[in-house]
Amino acid sequence: MRTDTRNKKRIAVIGGAKAETKHLQRAEEVGRLIAKRGGILVCGGLGGVMEAACKGAKKAGGLTIGILPGKDRAEANAYIDIAIATGLGFTRNSLVAMNADAVIAVDGLYGTLSEIAYTIVYGKKVIGLETWDIQGVLAAASPDEAVKLAFEE
Amino acid sequence: MRTDTRNKKRIAVIGGAKAETKHLQRAEEVGRLIAKRGGILVCGGLGGVMEAACKGAKKAGGLTIGILPGKDRAEANAYIDIAIATGLGFTRNSLVAMNADAVIAVDGLYGTLSEIAYTIVYGKKVIGLETWDIQGVLAAASPDEAVKLAFEE
Amino acid sequence: MRTDTRNKKRIAVIGGAKAETKHLQRAEEVGRLIAKRGGILVCGGLGGVMEAACKGAKKAGGLTIGILPGKDRAEANAYIDIAIATGLGFTRNSLVAMNADAVIAVDGLYGTLSEIAYTIVYGKKVIGLETWDIQGVLAAASPDEAVKLAFEE
Amino acid sequence: MRTDTRNKKRIAVIGGAKAETKHLQRAEEVGRLIAKRGGILVCGGLGGVMEAACKGAKKAGGLTIGILPGKDRAEANAYIDIAIATGLGFTRNSLVAMNADAVIAVDGLYGTLSEIAYTIVYGKKVIGLETWDIQGVLAAASPDEAVKLAFEE
Repeated sequence: MRTDTRNKKRIAVIGGAKAETKHLQRAEEVGRLIAKRGGILVCGGLGGVMEAACKGAKKAGGLTIGILPGKDRAEANAYIDIAIATGLGFTRNSLVAMNADAVIAVDGLYGTLSEIAYTIVYGKKVIGLETWDIQGVLAAASPDEAVKLAFEE
Repeated sequence: MRTDTRNKKRIAVIGGAKAETKHLQRAEEVGRLIAKRGGILVCGGLGGVMEAACKGAKKAGGLTIGILPGKDRAEANAYIDIAIATGLGFTRNSLVAMNADAVIAVDGLYGTLSEIAYTIVYGKKVIGLETWDIQGVLAAASPDEAVKLAFEE
Repeated sequence: MRTDTRNKKRIAVIGGAKAETKHLQRAEEVGRLIAKRGGILVCGGLGGVMEAACKGAKKAGGLTIGILPGKDRAEANAYIDIAIATGLGFTRNSLVAMNADAVIAVDGLYGTLSEIAYTIVYGKKVIGLETWDIQGVLAAASPDEAVKLAFEE
Repeated sequence: MRTDTRNKKRIAVIGGAKAETKHLQRAEEVGRLIAKRGGILVCGGLGGVMEAACKGAKKAGGLTIGILPGKDRAEANAYIDIAIATGLGFTRNSLVAMNADAVIAVDGLYGTLSEIAYTIVYGKKVIGLETWDIQGVLAAASPDEAVKLAFEE
């Protein structure tokens, strides 16, 4: 009777709501690989890198959770299965990090930086794909390597 | 490719983390009926009425979302499919109401009262089963009636 | 060197952003009496009952704190000394109750009800002046009695 | 009747709850200079850099606001005039940035990094004193320069 979703690893993909094509392609591939490995994709629920990652996850039959800044579930991108409205605005960035077991950052600006920081505050692993080059972020060379690192204990 | 979970109605079941057997039985029946009608069950993720409702929903093959007060998904009851950690404490009560299309209150004390109030603030329907008798709560005589009212437009 | 504001009692005044004249007059008198007794006035920072209470407190030389729903301190009413922006929307109601030692409710609808509920959840006293008539709210007959009750241990 | 605290500039000082003596000395000097210029000091309300900055501000007769992670005002350091309990845990970092007109970071780790990121997300100036060396942080050579930059339009 119990669900198996409880025991699945949750990987958050973070990055800008706007991004260049190369970053969107990488995010989509990251999402696909997370789903392929049986992980649940967590993100901020909006466009850009978030949407691309969700698209990839859904193509591979995965489950996606979007933790939204607004009060209305309808603002979630089209590939979100479970939209969680928070009404917290950017303050919800903390909850994106809180709800993942590991985080993959793709590109991104200061919102992404806040999520990277929170992930480390919460004692979890952050892997980066052409994102902030700061201490504590494990740089990966490819989506494949990023997802592999995210699933490693 | 898109998920059908987006279009499912979400009903929150609210009530105390501790409750008498008769309330737990009703909550379980409410959960079962929500799932049977194809709804997604939302709750605060902990024990008592929340757990009973989730148990009922899972028995009927439904999906359950628990919006937790703490930072750790492990605090969710055993029948939660999608645990969302918030770290907001009781302040998360607002998010339980925010993430439902309608709310059914079973018994409950002041935490439940805060959720009833938020549900009305957010312009949604609250149905009550032996809970706070205040203006704005639609009293139902049975789990069956409560769930029927919750699904009505 | 240390401030004496730390040791002053904090009383929250809660109620609607719109209210009839008689309620506004009472709220102003409540605010005045809180300040006269050396208390700090806490409120949600907006108009109506909140503004009237702050006006009363400032007339008596008191200090006022407004815990705002929005992100911009400028939304505080003109009688707020210390505006705290939260960006939490109605979810900030929990923080109004959290930051008071006792709460006086004047009139009010469901937002006020959520604050009454949180005050009791947080184990503090709620006094009511023509507000929700529910268990746990101490009904006072006048601003004078309300403030007296709020300061009693 | 209106308070002049509304029109005072608010400067947040952010940094670790533990820090070396040299950083604490700088934070204290920063706090002193903020108060001397008529600013209000905002911080996270706890120890280390936060406490040192508040100590400096109070020595110069300034006003200090502490936006706390916990639910209890008593956790504020001894130099906080206005303690605001949030119960949000680290998620309150967003509110520290939200409640300042400019931010000075002294030393600090990942919590500080999240506050730096939020400050830039909210479109405000961040000045750094031996803190994160990232794009968007204006490095200052001394407390004097940091405070001067913070007060510049």
